[in-house]
Amino acid sequence: MTGENWLDEIKWTEDGLVPAIAQDADTGEVLMFAWMNRESLAMSAREGRAVYFSRSRGRLWPKGEESGHVQQIREIRVDCDKDVVLLKIEQVGGIACHTGRRSCFYFRLEDGDWQAVEAVLKDPGEIYRQP
Amino acid sequence: MTGENWLDEIKWTEDGLVPAIAQDADTGEVLMFAWMNRESLAMSAREGRAVYFSRSRGRLWPKGEESGHVQQIREIRVDCDKDVVLLKIEQVGGIACHTGRRSCFYFRLEDGDWQAVEAVLKDPGEIYRQP
Repeated sequence: MTGENWLDEIKWTEDGLVPAIAQDADTGEVLMFAWMNRESLAMSAREGRAVYFSRSRGRLWPKGEESGHVQQIREIRVDCDKDVVLLKIEQVGGIACHTGRRSCFYFRLEDGDWQAVEAVLKDPGEIYRQP
Repeated sequence: MTGENWLDEIKWTEDGLVPAIAQDADTGEVLMFAWMNRESLAMSAREGRAVYFSRSRGRLWPKGEESGHVQQIREIRVDCDKDVVLLKIEQVGGIACHTGRRSCFYFRLEDGDWQAVEAVLKDPGEIYRQP
């Protein structure tokens, strides 16, 4: 079992968090941005699936727990200052965004306005269907 | 002249900032992560060059001001919550990182350790040479 020195090296915020960027390992597309705490980063590395920390809900957020849109991790990277994490992932279902789009970054600035430039692949009502 | 509604739509942090990811517009490589305030995002859009806000120095940080490694903006995107900016850029000089590497995300987690897996393209002493 490996130690946790690599976790100690991360420069956590005062709240014990680190920003995390999820990038499609094949296409390079930036899919989403979220936060992690120490436990969620440790779990992500151990399980090979992205687990974030939901600041709004104040708890661990295993990506895809409701939607099934799990992120399989191919690589975990950190930047020069060790204060930002980059995950290279395979996006199960091809949808990272809760709006049913492939990527969360679907608004492009055009002539002084944000234009949605990516298609909705699945109705959110279907993704988050109540049992 | 366009209005500033698009800036009003950004969900700034309490400190008036928004996280910004810079991605190579051609290769898709994630090059760096920084913060912007309203003024820096407005300037970035107006000038077509990335201007960040340096939290450590407490001032605007036109990327490349010392190194010459300016980032020419091709697209400005924002995510579904409008609280994270993604810049698709052309990296002048091919080096985004102050360590002389192409990308800041050069540490990869391997067997429980962070390994530097990207080459230094230019000596930082040469990049930030004093006049």
